[in-house]
Amino acid sequence: MTQTVDLNADMGESFGSWKMGDDTALLDIVTSANVACGFHAGDWDVMATTIKMAAEKGVGIGAHPGFPDLHGFGRQRMKFAQGSLQNLVRYQVGAAQAMSLAAGSPVRHLKLHGALANMTSEDEAMARACYEAVLDVAPDIIVMVLAGTAQQRAASALGCKVACEIFADRAYNDDATLVDRALPGAVIHDPEAAGRRMAEMVREGAIITESGKRIETRIDTICLHGDTPTAVRIASEVRRALSESGVTLAKFEGAPV
Amino acid sequence: MTQTVDLNADMGESFGSWKMGDDTALLDIVTSANVACGFHAGDWDVMATTIKMAAEKGVGIGAHPGFPDLHGFGRQRMKFAQGSLQNLVRYQVGAAQAMSLAAGSPVRHLKLHGALANMTSEDEAMARACYEAVLDVAPDIIVMVLAGTAQQRAASALGCKVACEIFADRAYNDDATLVDRALPGAVIHDPEAAGRRMAEMVREGAIITESGKRIETRIDTICLHGDTPTAVRIASEVRRALSESGVTLAKFEGAPV
Amino acid sequence: MTQTVDLNADMGESFGSWKMGDDTALLDIVTSANVACGFHAGDWDVMATTIKMAAEKGVGIGAHPGFPDLHGFGRQRMKFAQGSLQNLVRYQVGAAQAMSLAAGSPVRHLKLHGALANMTSEDEAMARACYEAVLDVAPDIIVMVLAGTAQQRAASALGCKVACEIFADRAYNDDATLVDRALPGAVIHDPEAAGRRMAEMVREGAIITESGKRIETRIDTICLHGDTPTAVRIASEVRRALSESGVTLAKFEGAPV
Amino acid sequence: MTQTVDLNADMGESFGSWKMGDDTALLDIVTSANVACGFHAGDWDVMATTIKMAAEKGVGIGAHPGFPDLHGFGRQRMKFAQGSLQNLVRYQVGAAQAMSLAAGSPVRHLKLHGALANMTSEDEAMARACYEAVLDVAPDIIVMVLAGTAQQRAASALGCKVACEIFADRAYNDDATLVDRALPGAVIHDPEAAGRRMAEMVREGAIITESGKRIETRIDTICLHGDTPTAVRIASEVRRALSESGVTLAKFEGAPV
Repeated sequence: MTQTVDLNADMGESFGSWKMGDDTALLDIVTSANVACGFHAGDWDVMATTIKMAAEKGVGIGAHPGFPDLHGFGRQRMKFAQGSLQNLVRYQVGAAQAMSLAAGSPVRHLKLHGALANMTSEDEAMARACYEAVLDVAPDIIVMVLAGTAQQRAASALGCKVACEIFADRAYNDDATLVDRALPGAVIHDPEAAGRRMAEMVREGAIITESGKRIETRIDTICLHGDTPTAVRIASEVRRALSESGVTLAKFEGAPV
Repeated sequence: MTQTVDLNADMGESFGSWKMGDDTALLDIVTSANVACGFHAGDWDVMATTIKMAAEKGVGIGAHPGFPDLHGFGRQRMKFAQGSLQNLVRYQVGAAQAMSLAAGSPVRHLKLHGALANMTSEDEAMARACYEAVLDVAPDIIVMVLAGTAQQRAASALGCKVACEIFADRAYNDDATLVDRALPGAVIHDPEAAGRRMAEMVREGAIITESGKRIETRIDTICLHGDTPTAVRIASEVRRALSESGVTLAKFEGAPV
Repeated sequence: MTQTVDLNADMGESFGSWKMGDDTALLDIVTSANVACGFHAGDWDVMATTIKMAAEKGVGIGAHPGFPDLHGFGRQRMKFAQGSLQNLVRYQVGAAQAMSLAAGSPVRHLKLHGALANMTSEDEAMARACYEAVLDVAPDIIVMVLAGTAQQRAASALGCKVACEIFADRAYNDDATLVDRALPGAVIHDPEAAGRRMAEMVREGAIITESGKRIETRIDTICLHGDTPTAVRIASEVRRALSESGVTLAKFEGAPV
Repeated sequence: MTQTVDLNADMGESFGSWKMGDDTALLDIVTSANVACGFHAGDWDVMATTIKMAAEKGVGIGAHPGFPDLHGFGRQRMKFAQGSLQNLVRYQVGAAQAMSLAAGSPVRHLKLHGALANMTSEDEAMARACYEAVLDVAPDIIVMVLAGTAQQRAASALGCKVACEIFADRAYNDDATLVDRALPGAVIHDPEAAGRRMAEMVREGAIITESGKRIETRIDTICLHGDTPTAVRIASEVRRALSESGVTLAKFEGAPV
């Protein structure tokens, strides 16, 4: 059986006069794009341009909402009452839907950003609140979750469409969480190492931790980062390594998990 | 034949910890609500709450986009390239659509806010750009226009659904523009005078200017203001005067103009 | 010996078109004003107007910096590296100094706002970082601290000028912390109760807790709140009760603690 | 007699996670730095870092206030009442003063940014209002003006310290205004041409227009741009060409004009 995997990256993170990332180059590598929605990054024009480019290249379009923290790029952990959190996410997804509709390609998936992603990967009720809010207004959306976390459990309980995600450039602990960025080896900078590692995980259907442990998981998509100097090189090499291993690169289908 | 007119007011203009207007009281008077979309006023929670209340009371829900000018309440005249202006409006309407969908009552109309309203009432191409952008993503939306201005001409040329609006508390010049706020008599503060005047204009199907001139126009809706101390009293009195004149108060239907 | 105490309130919390609090009325009651610096509330005009009014009435002017969280009114707990926190506070104090200088009355004291106040009342190193940053650029400033907390310990260690503060309308636990707002009785709404209580605490030189325990502390100033419906009534009553008890109301002198 | 001229560039225009310009490289070339104050660009940390670097390299520090328009980089023309405009400028200069004081090197000059610069170069009363506001709180500040414009007339009338500025990379019309950016030749991209041109203008004490006309003017400083790809190369070449012509590069002294 041929294996298939999706490659995703965060995009549309420029703002006004400030540029971030090389979206044009990344859109030739990835199969899904997570587009910032204006709260932690992105603006109406950046969204429109990014979504239009993605639509033209056949890349799947995702809404990538975050906390209202432009200065901190959505990385401040913020507390909102559950209803407020739901409104916050819904607002951003609605904006993305309008931009996508205008580009002729609907929003296909949802991925939470930054501290909102981190907090929901630890807190199933919070993840569920966000996902329910979005499913209310986009019942066919595919929810991208961090494989093996509370995000996956929340999406699984809802029975919605899901895409399980692992990271190309981050080392894992034995409980499937990411190694703290402050520790040596937490971030993988060598494109070839990242490529080899991804091919292996996809082939085995498992997260391989730093200690060598295998944690079985469905892997639907691999997260590439767009905002580091070597981002495009790592992304290209992961793509090459996967193709060479006989893995097909294509948008995820979103089967419930 | 019974005459029918709609009453509209700007709402959802609170932000974070700051309150503005008495939306709860106004929602018992108006038949359409123009809900701020977070750029010049409003936030995700204010939008959700306002739209939910409007939906529950059967009040028509409108998206009320403005310039990205929170400090100036959208009253700074800002210049954007046409494409950017379209993205700006589309983004806000998309957000409003998601909030409305969650409340179970779709966005029914569009009304531009503040300087964006002023500039488009003078510039038909600019008005047309905004309306086209919104019709792309909401083809059935009713475009509320300032009666007799470039807004009306733009909507007329597009052949879309339209609602023509006059102001309850503003005096008119002989060319159908509003008397400058800096001049005496520009703003009508007396609730009974406002009520009498509106009943007369609706009955005659004409704007009656300060000098007494009649300018024939379709009148579909009357704008009440929500943010002045006497706002609720003027709104109540206009409603009472119209009812007493035998005018039915109901949401506009949006016939093209 | 005659006892003297200062009355302070947060002010200048309007923003753009949004009004908050009745600063004009409060400025006739308090002896010190804590002026928001534009990050969590206030703007350049609100600051200028508030400071000018305070200067004209002889009320002491304080810089009241907060986190960059306009939507959340500075109540989100945000994490910044120590140097960044220092820059954040310094920026706001510098802005306040320029506005004060233009009004002819210099910034006399510093009071941290919202989550920044809460976090520094628990974390002495964080409090010290903020105070040091401000003392760098305003060596004679009087640091207002929450009596009995890490704020007081930090200011004491620095040897700077200090004003110790208690709350007029909040109940205290036996460890001098405030009773959680979620609990019954946490907030005192009865103006007469608040007045009686303050007169007693000032006379005894002690915080009197909910259980009746006395915690000795220097009391230099009493915090009145400005943004509740009964704010002005409570403020007036506290002022009256203190005067009747023979307590002199005057700006604090700032003796080190 | 040896001629002396200053080289200035806008700096500190990064914001949060977004970088702009190569300040480190430019600080080795310029003698004065115009530091964004957080309204159109820059934040508390960017300001602190930029000012600290400038102080260490002996580069003169300038406050560079702009309109509150982060998305538009201060390029939207905004209207404020005169008093509000003065508060706006004062706030930003005060913030810059605190950051500078902490770095041990005071704010030496003022330069207005973007649309605020454009509008004040056309409107002497507006320029005067801004300069008076700043001189209130910083009486010894050197006001940098666009040579030959309303800015220069305003500063001259006030009798304050002044530095007259010309542009290294912009062509001039015969009335000393800049050639519209939309026209061919408006921006000079060739480093050598820019260098030759600056050496000639400084030597002749005149703006040389596109048509070859000489407009006599005091030239105290040359503006280099920092945010274009060739910015550092043009800056280096202007510096080289001036040195080769025997012009001394040093901070302006600020003699009234």
